[in-house]
Amino acid sequence: MDQDREQGSALDPRYDAAGLVTAVVTDHRSGEVLMLAHMNAEALAATLESGEATFFSRSRGRLWKKGESSGNVMRVVEARIDCDQDAIWLRCEPAGPACHTGERSCFYRRIDRDGPTLVRTIEV
Amino acid sequence: MDQDREQGSALDPRYDAAGLVTAVVTDHRSGEVLMLAHMNAEALAATLESGEATFFSRSRGRLWKKGESSGNVMRVVEARIDCDQDAIWLRCEPAGPACHTGERSCFYRRIDRDGPTLVRTIEV
Repeated sequence: MDQDREQGSALDPRYDAAGLVTAVVTDHRSGEVLMLAHMNAEALAATLESGEATFFSRSRGRLWKKGESSGNVMRVVEARIDCDQDAIWLRCEPAGPACHTGERSCFYRRIDRDGPTLVRTIEV
Repeated sequence: MDQDREQGSALDPRYDAAGLVTAVVTDHRSGEVLMLAHMNAEALAATLESGEATFFSRSRGRLWKKGESSGNVMRVVEARIDCDQDAIWLRCEPAGPACHTGERSCFYRRIDRDGPTLVRTIEV
């Protein structure tokens, strides 16, 4: 492990071979995990500058500001980075559903150990 | 998007080229994101069967039960999967710190937009 990267105050993301880090988005009030996505250096810079979550869409191969078409932007309340700087945690205030299915969170199904099968969670 | 994968009740993870999905672990009480890791099919099966978070260590190239050496196992309270089934969310009861640095969470630094620089978060 790189000691500076773990203990230092310099932002020095460890991008993978594709130039990406993983980003997890939670609702800053409820703590619910809303979605996972990826960021390249440009997406991270745009997120920090604008205060709105911006990712790199691997399927579209371009920068993707969350909510750019739906209006459901994610305002970043706090951004954190993990020990080895290859993962970002965004605590956000969501303007609407995180998931393209219309669900509040992309994680709308729990895995039941029997089967295993997927069971839709109750909206709370 | 695959409609069955998004709306169905069958567990059918969409593993990447390396045979992995991303897993995010939160403290089921506080909602704090504790760590991110990866799972292959064997790790996911072991997690569901044992009820304790098990990952695939990319650096060591083998199955890695969290806490196997430190004792800081993560008891899984609930496992969820996202819309396109390439990410897992484990809501856990941690037996100790999640991070190898001894921090409760791997995300112990926030990104300050000025700089940007990293600032250690206050333990609460």
